[in-house]
Amino acid sequence: MPAIDAARLLADLHALRAIGTYKTGVHRPTYGADDVRSRHWLAERLTQAGLLTEIDGIGNVIGRDPCPGSKLLLGSHLETQNHAGWLDGAMGVAFGLEVARTLGRGIDVAGWADEEGHFGSFLGSRSYAGLLPEAEIDGCKSVDDGTPLRTALANAGFAGKPRLTADPARYRGYLEAHIEQGGTLEDAGQKIGVVTAIVGSHRFRIVFEGQQNHAGTTRMAVRRDAGVALIKLGAAIEDRFPSVVGPRTVWTTGRIVLDPGAPSIVPGRAEMLFQFRDTDQARLFALEAELKTLVEQANQGPCRVTIAHIGRSVPRQMDDGFQTALERAAERHAPGSHQRMPSGAGHDAQIMAEVMPAGMLFVPSIGGVSHHYSEDTNEADIVLGCQVFADAAATILAAS
Amino acid sequence: MPAIDAARLLADLHALRAIGTYKTGVHRPTYGADDVRSRHWLAERLTQAGLLTEIDGIGNVIGRDPCPGSKLLLGSHLETQNHAGWLDGAMGVAFGLEVARTLGRGIDVAGWADEEGHFGSFLGSRSYAGLLPEAEIDGCKSVDDGTPLRTALANAGFAGKPRLTADPARYRGYLEAHIEQGGTLEDAGQKIGVVTAIVGSHRFRIVFEGQQNHAGTTRMAVRRDAGVALIKLGAAIEDRFPSVVGPRTVWTTGRIVLDPGAPSIVPGRAEMLFQFRDTDQARLFALEAELKTLVEQANQGPCRVTIAHIGRSVPRQMDDGFQTALERAAERHAPGSHQRMPSGAGHDAQIMAEVMPAGMLFVPSIGGVSHHYSEDTNEADIVLGCQVFADAAATILAAS
Repeated sequence: MPAIDAARLLADLHALRAIGTYKTGVHRPTYGADDVRSRHWLAERLTQAGLLTEIDGIGNVIGRDPCPGSKLLLGSHLETQNHAGWLDGAMGVAFGLEVARTLGRGIDVAGWADEEGHFGSFLGSRSYAGLLPEAEIDGCKSVDDGTPLRTALANAGFAGKPRLTADPARYRGYLEAHIEQGGTLEDAGQKIGVVTAIVGSHRFRIVFEGQQNHAGTTRMAVRRDAGVALIKLGAAIEDRFPSVVGPRTVWTTGRIVLDPGAPSIVPGRAEMLFQFRDTDQARLFALEAELKTLVEQANQGPCRVTIAHIGRSVPRQMDDGFQTALERAAERHAPGSHQRMPSGAGHDAQIMAEVMPAGMLFVPSIGGVSHHYSEDTNEADIVLGCQVFADAAATILAAS
Repeated sequence: MPAIDAARLLADLHALRAIGTYKTGVHRPTYGADDVRSRHWLAERLTQAGLLTEIDGIGNVIGRDPCPGSKLLLGSHLETQNHAGWLDGAMGVAFGLEVARTLGRGIDVAGWADEEGHFGSFLGSRSYAGLLPEAEIDGCKSVDDGTPLRTALANAGFAGKPRLTADPARYRGYLEAHIEQGGTLEDAGQKIGVVTAIVGSHRFRIVFEGQQNHAGTTRMAVRRDAGVALIKLGAAIEDRFPSVVGPRTVWTTGRIVLDPGAPSIVPGRAEMLFQFRDTDQARLFALEAELKTLVEQANQGPCRVTIAHIGRSVPRQMDDGFQTALERAAERHAPGSHQRMPSGAGHDAQIMAEVMPAGMLFVPSIGGVSHHYSEDTNEADIVLGCQVFADAAATILAAS
């Protein structure tokens, strides 16, 4: 199997880290000046690697092998969360570039736009998969400052360019490498994670409407305290969910707001953002049924409780053959130091899995940290991960 | 018993309502231009009523009967909460002015500064009671915009004036009229509330420290979710408090903040503002002990839970003789339409009760609303309340 060039790989990663540096991490929100610079940087590198490269109308950087034959698509996203880490996304893109150079044939590379959701939901990979309608682009706005997506694309210089889409017949499939973003590999002392499936998530806004009142003069018996209704539902979820979930289900209340939120006012309105994730579609719907039962019970109290979907994503299984290829490559380079595991985070691979076979490889995250500038991975683990990734890609292409 | 002049009383109230009008209410924060105008307006009216009147160094408007003999001090506060009602405070001041004119002797009138806490805690009445040290004034700042109190007093034209203080030997006591700010009188179809005691409150900030993590990749077993710890303590309070409280105890969580408050991040820190109120000092301390036990139990979980006092106020009993005088006056003018009741809100009367006998009369609040521009009371109820207040004042003075 061909050996990657570790120094060249790490030089690329440090070059990307220098575009939008924030403390020890990177601040590179989608379509901002630094994100645009990083896309032109990648396009130049891919061209130097011999790929026909374009930045398309949604900001995807796509480099294509000009020679005939079946291709494997490698990639990840270039932008970061706000004030986040240097490897989340960038590492998978750099692996794609390095493997294209190492193998010399059969590799297309993608640097996706906006996996991190500054403007929408997986805009870049959905666009390439043919799953992003123009009308949706019209409606997207920056979650950071409200800028319309069309304006941001124009400012970035991408407006008016065609959007490229994948011809599934061209591709053997899609492979993505990523940091784990959790502590499973580190805790187990493993170096490589072979992703079995990417979780789906159901996400909700739950609103409690009661009556705002003076916290001194309003007797308990007549209160309709929206905050108390929220606390009781939250406690009921913690009580009930453990008997419905699977071993890797996770559920989270990320945000609670009491209105007006003053110390001496009984809250008249309260809101919570709640979500759960699992790799098993049936379990997601069982959890949703349980949640709705709890909301109905909460509605028996003095407040009106309503639940609305914010979004849903479908769990995606990774291709069995790709898992085997990744596992065998891992066993060659890191015998006994790899494990199969689901991905609790969403990734572009779950989008590409809708139109072609897909697989993912994880490297360990130090302390399990992500979405923070202190996110990091040992450079030896990065190099090992890229070599395993290259071997698996070569194996998959050889079998095509 | 002398009859008040209802038209004159209502004209005064509408004149005050015109100073800082906001929708159907008033926006007159302490030491703002409209608050200062209202204080000069009151000083002029009190002077016209034959009282020796000063605006002192904290902004209190004090009108004193120049003739010898024991006095009764009547009053309330002039400023309002932000964008609040026209009667909260103003009505008690106008009653004082009207009763001074009606009785013609024996009445001092106070328009207190900052009962509503824009800069501090009961600054005006504490100053007149001799309970406000200069050093505290040095440290106070606007909760709205951070302006130092000294600067606000200078801008208002009050800096450098002496602060007046009560000579307890001058006074038979203090009487205050106020809107109820709750729905007890309206629900019971009553017109007059005779206040038995003003509740004390214990107020806390409870902080939960866990570990911030990715909501997809962090397994439930290793989470230290500060939001879940908060919800569990909140639910434990709702569970346990009913067996410790008295019939009129109230407890409230007015504010909850999860940090960072993003839908897909396990909160690493959470905070709640919690308070309870009761007229019984022993019960307040029993509730505090119960709360601290629950916090200790919460500390057995994966998060660190700490509790800190924000403030405490002491319950104050109203003078028995004043209650009797108010009740008899109410029975004369509104037979069977009055009741004794505690005050769940804080009032200047609880401060004056530290240095002299004190009493309070409530009129109904429509819909129990207060601290909102829609706060209101029927004008007939206002007029009735003032007549009862005048009769009680006359009775108390006659007995002196």
